[in-house]
Amino acid sequence: MACASCQNPFRINAHFHENSRILSPKLEFSNVNFGSTIEFSSLASASTSKEYGVLVHSLPNADGSMNEKVPTPILDMVENPMHLKNLTSKELKQLADDIRSELSIMSKTQKSVKASLPVIELTVAIHRVFHAPVDKILWDMADQTYPHKLLTGRRSLMHEAKPIDDLSSFTCRSEFDPFGAGHGCSSISSGLGMAVARDIKGKKDRIVAVISNETTLAGQVYEAMSNAGYLDSNMVVILNDSRHSLHPKLEKAPKTSVNAISSTLSKLQSSKLFRKYRELAKVLTKKVGRGMHEWAAKVDEYARGMIGPSGSTLFEELGLYYIGPVDGHNIEDLVCVLHEVASLDSMGPVLVHVITKEDYEVEDNQMKSEEHHEGSFSFDSLPSNSRPQTYSDHFVKALITESERDEDIVVVHAGMGMEASFQLLKNALQDKFFDVGMAEQHAVTFSAGLSCGGLKPFCIIPSAFLQRAYDQVVHDVDRQKIPVRFVITSAGLVGSDGATHSGPFDIAFMSCLPNMIVMAPSDEIELARMVTAAAHIDDRPVCFRYPRGAIANMNPNSYPGEEIEIGKGKILVEGKDIALLGFGSMVQNCLRAHSLLAKLGIDVTVADARFCKPLDIQLVRTLCKNHSFLITVEEGSIGGFGAHVAQFISLDGQLDAGIKWRPITLPDNYIEGALPKDQLALAGLTGNHIAATALNLLGRTRDALLLMC
Amino acid sequence: MACASCQNPFRINAHFHENSRILSPKLEFSNVNFGSTIEFSSLASASTSKEYGVLVHSLPNADGSMNEKVPTPILDMVENPMHLKNLTSKELKQLADDIRSELSIMSKTQKSVKASLPVIELTVAIHRVFHAPVDKILWDMADQTYPHKLLTGRRSLMHEAKPIDDLSSFTCRSEFDPFGAGHGCSSISSGLGMAVARDIKGKKDRIVAVISNETTLAGQVYEAMSNAGYLDSNMVVILNDSRHSLHPKLEKAPKTSVNAISSTLSKLQSSKLFRKYRELAKVLTKKVGRGMHEWAAKVDEYARGMIGPSGSTLFEELGLYYIGPVDGHNIEDLVCVLHEVASLDSMGPVLVHVITKEDYEVEDNQMKSEEHHEGSFSFDSLPSNSRPQTYSDHFVKALITESERDEDIVVVHAGMGMEASFQLLKNALQDKFFDVGMAEQHAVTFSAGLSCGGLKPFCIIPSAFLQRAYDQVVHDVDRQKIPVRFVITSAGLVGSDGATHSGPFDIAFMSCLPNMIVMAPSDEIELARMVTAAAHIDDRPVCFRYPRGAIANMNPNSYPGEEIEIGKGKILVEGKDIALLGFGSMVQNCLRAHSLLAKLGIDVTVADARFCKPLDIQLVRTLCKNHSFLITVEEGSIGGFGAHVAQFISLDGQLDAGIKWRPITLPDNYIEGALPKDQLALAGLTGNHIAATALNLLGRTRDALLLMC
Repeated sequence: MACASCQNPFRINAHFHENSRILSPKLEFSNVNFGSTIEFSSLASASTSKEYGVLVHSLPNADGSMNEKVPTPILDMVENPMHLKNLTSKELKQLADDIRSELSIMSKTQKSVKASLPVIELTVAIHRVFHAPVDKILWDMADQTYPHKLLTGRRSLMHEAKPIDDLSSFTCRSEFDPFGAGHGCSSISSGLGMAVARDIKGKKDRIVAVISNETTLAGQVYEAMSNAGYLDSNMVVILNDSRHSLHPKLEKAPKTSVNAISSTLSKLQSSKLFRKYRELAKVLTKKVGRGMHEWAAKVDEYARGMIGPSGSTLFEELGLYYIGPVDGHNIEDLVCVLHEVASLDSMGPVLVHVITKEDYEVEDNQMKSEEHHEGSFSFDSLPSNSRPQTYSDHFVKALITESERDEDIVVVHAGMGMEASFQLLKNALQDKFFDVGMAEQHAVTFSAGLSCGGLKPFCIIPSAFLQRAYDQVVHDVDRQKIPVRFVITSAGLVGSDGATHSGPFDIAFMSCLPNMIVMAPSDEIELARMVTAAAHIDDRPVCFRYPRGAIANMNPNSYPGEEIEIGKGKILVEGKDIALLGFGSMVQNCLRAHSLLAKLGIDVTVADARFCKPLDIQLVRTLCKNHSFLITVEEGSIGGFGAHVAQFISLDGQLDAGIKWRPITLPDNYIEGALPKDQLALAGLTGNHIAATALNLLGRTRDALLLMC
Repeated sequence: MACASCQNPFRINAHFHENSRILSPKLEFSNVNFGSTIEFSSLASASTSKEYGVLVHSLPNADGSMNEKVPTPILDMVENPMHLKNLTSKELKQLADDIRSELSIMSKTQKSVKASLPVIELTVAIHRVFHAPVDKILWDMADQTYPHKLLTGRRSLMHEAKPIDDLSSFTCRSEFDPFGAGHGCSSISSGLGMAVARDIKGKKDRIVAVISNETTLAGQVYEAMSNAGYLDSNMVVILNDSRHSLHPKLEKAPKTSVNAISSTLSKLQSSKLFRKYRELAKVLTKKVGRGMHEWAAKVDEYARGMIGPSGSTLFEELGLYYIGPVDGHNIEDLVCVLHEVASLDSMGPVLVHVITKEDYEVEDNQMKSEEHHEGSFSFDSLPSNSRPQTYSDHFVKALITESERDEDIVVVHAGMGMEASFQLLKNALQDKFFDVGMAEQHAVTFSAGLSCGGLKPFCIIPSAFLQRAYDQVVHDVDRQKIPVRFVITSAGLVGSDGATHSGPFDIAFMSCLPNMIVMAPSDEIELARMVTAAAHIDDRPVCFRYPRGAIANMNPNSYPGEEIEIGKGKILVEGKDIALLGFGSMVQNCLRAHSLLAKLGIDVTVADARFCKPLDIQLVRTLCKNHSFLITVEEGSIGGFGAHVAQFISLDGQLDAGIKWRPITLPDNYIEGALPKDQLALAGLTGNHIAATALNLLGRTRDALLLMC
């Protein structure tokens, strides 16, 4: 969920709260402004959107006060999980308090840290019972890993003001993190792989996978649990349940209470004696006969089900032994249950259901008063113009306008979290807005069903998460030529979220589909036009992609009514020496290159392709005819827009006729989290890079070099 | 599961039975031989692999005897589901018997029909109770739809000897099939979309989605059920359970017996009175308070759970009201239960658990004796050389050899069904072979976990189904640079399976990934070498793709030990006029083009690229330097191999230096099921097409035309 990149842990991108607004943004534009760069001081209590790469220049301890403020005596002694082994219960509790103190302060500036607060006791208990790094602890929500990082020797990294791999919110593979986490829902699958490998290799380490509520929406988790139940390898899955319900009806479901009975029960269930008795019963009844075996299993299952929370039997059905619920803030209970679980041999997969509170507070008046202080800010009262308008804001505005004209428009949203802008859309569309969360596969086929039912679905999924529904896009939509309108957000580079949440591949993987129309707007006005165009296309699927953040210097209030003709791009600036053909937001960088080159006396044409598919072949022919050089520019991987242009100009004979074509795409590597302008520079996609490419083509290599200095 | 294409219903690709062999194959080679074309006579009792496109030239009734053989008096009267409405129970049973008679005979030659036998009574009951096409009946295993097609006016199409859309095993969208089915697991998602659309539009039609055992392995189904439970729209999900267990431990799970109690119970549960009482109880307890509401729900749930089969509460947990199990061969029970379900308003999503028997037989001695006759054949006793060796056979042989050398090699297999060849691999690797079925997402991340645990996983997934795990390939493998070896089977066109199971996109969507090595073997020997190379690559992910079927004229027993150097292709034939650079099996067609052109006095170079990534840039440079024309050839979509070559020769200045490049790729449309040679001709990928392209480039358009005649 959180968004700091692997290489840039201090570029923290926080959890968002709906309707939140960023305070006093200090903008840093390259060309696309992905988000706001905010001074630490102004961030003191800002609740920021996950979708905006908030970059914190200085750490909490930059003012030199954090460590002095709250003493953390036990935490100070822990440099390695081994150091927990001899602590008393009381000391473990103190350790948890120390961690909470440290993180509570950080969480005010780094919202991703906040998600770690509910799992402090759980993390302490895990490290008390299990032996990392020999035992593998896997997380699939990376922003819950701060306590884990504090206890695994990475505390000091938090106090260094330079980018460091290990402290990123996304968990990267390292000594104490056996698998990377970024898209959620991978921990059981990868953990099961490790468990099976361990068994094959005859090793004895234990595998612990921690999952969370949001994860239980994702289909892969069910696939993984079913397979774990089938393979019956030893592993421990811990469900960190802060919603108190496994049911997808998040708001409606009653909260399970953790009381004395359930606490005692959990301990009983996990005790060796109980497990052994149960095993014995299984063996006996198997011998006695099928009917009785079934009956015995059922009695066992349902007897526990009756006093267990809603959802417990779901895991049993999938083949995991369910234990819980356990109070996630009671270290003694947690240690006791985990200890029993850890000491069992040949137990098969176990699910421990841990109930945590998102708002769990430290028993510390000082902390409480500080938290109260934090709570006194209200972001709803802030003027909405205090942050720059984003592409998504414009999209929402255009779609609301469109939906007022056309009552068949419905919206399906999927992916991790939701951009703040879409809350407006949800409010406007009400029952016609479906947020299915981390269930992208379902979202796409569900959209296809809505379309078959006569509605006009817009299916909003970030580029990286559309990857999770690719087969559904191919088979359930494109193959059947069903009109679903894909809105691909966070396309291309995503600033501080780095490679994990970036979307470089969508142009390639969508444009190869025969029936798909692939568009990308060059600015907000074009975006609004594409929304209209997409609403009107009703005989085939269509997608358009846009990046995070906003473009400066646009007037968001002028939406000319001009409609886009399918497959038609346009020339923005007419020149003669070189043609720049941009796709999507890169058109802006082509315009920047144009300005730079104009100063050097070079007369450049800039065209907005608008469509990767169907390609505007008349436009491309015109550009080839009137120029010696054609440069295609896109913020996407190889195999996308440039490839489509190349294929056309080859088959059309334009290449043979002498046009010199150069593709500018994203480079063939993952670009880690950084300031948007730094990422674009790394990628070679700035106006200067484009201009330098043009200069090199014209043989003016010295000018090109000067431009890159 | 079944494989006839939408346009070619009589090109039937049957279910396979493990270890089966095709009898007396009559081979029809174009270049790649996808499978065997078999005379009807030889097929009379052949059990054939799903993976081989078995093409039946003549229909069962081609001998003019089918309709005469078994009288089908009731079926003869049914031309529309409406005609079922006035039939008595006895007549409905007779109708089912009629259908079974008709399909039983067909099923001997068309294995895909066999899967329809268990659902005959269910289909009759559905059409008796629901009103198609106003009510929407959705199937997600298309080869269970033959009774449905018989009852919905498409019987006559079975007796025409020309290709017809509607009778294909894959369900295409049409009057009585509101959504296409081919990859499984889409019916609940699409049905829910239709249900929601219906509610928004204020319509009253009912949605029925039939799912099956295999489907319950797929994550999307859980996503869809959760969302259905949350949205609470009226829809009926029918689980056609022929394995008698929802548990993934297919072999181990006890079979649920359908007895008088469960039958009565199902009827009770589905009765209006019971439902209304339950609704009332809900309302009451909601008012009384949360605790009691929970308790009441639990009592209700578990009371039913105690007498329900294993798995029933799983659906309840996901938010579906569970009814069952119902005897799937008792029409009266089925009609009664479905009638109650259909007559309820505002019931939310309901799951009806129907138990069917795969080997259910008609109470007809004639039929029984015929079925017995069929069973008397044993395919295991047939010599394995009675069918041509396939790419998969060679892959299996090579991997077994490799695994004898390297004990760390493990295999993960996912997708719909499993090729017969892989059974050998399973037998050889035993505990190191993991077949996870229709759970591709899990398969990929599980492989990553195995790799992290120190093993060397080969992850086998057909190209079309790898689409379902694309995000896992990107995020869990490539992004983390984890050495997983992807074996992409059924790449490119797949003969009779048509567009639904074809794999045109994998070169594009795998080659754009930064860390992935992308290979394709040009023949079986190269395939064996690539298996070795993949086993040795242990620092990054690698994939290789191969098509269905076999190449003729190869000696499968000669595997030269020469190892492939990563990123190195090779020149097979040295010429001068034109260079043909093939990727994968298309190298063979380049060699065919070479022969054709040689006869016309044209001296052509043929090179085997081997790698799309890393591209052999020395080889490409050499080809550009020594030739005026470069033609790239691949059996894949735009954005793949050709795109990578184009990008390189552009940036390297080769294009400017005068090389004329032409890409030959799959065309930008879906190619429906047909004979492999016809498909390749449609795609423009035969040796003749390649030669004609060369001739056109040389200005010899007349020769080119002659070649295409």
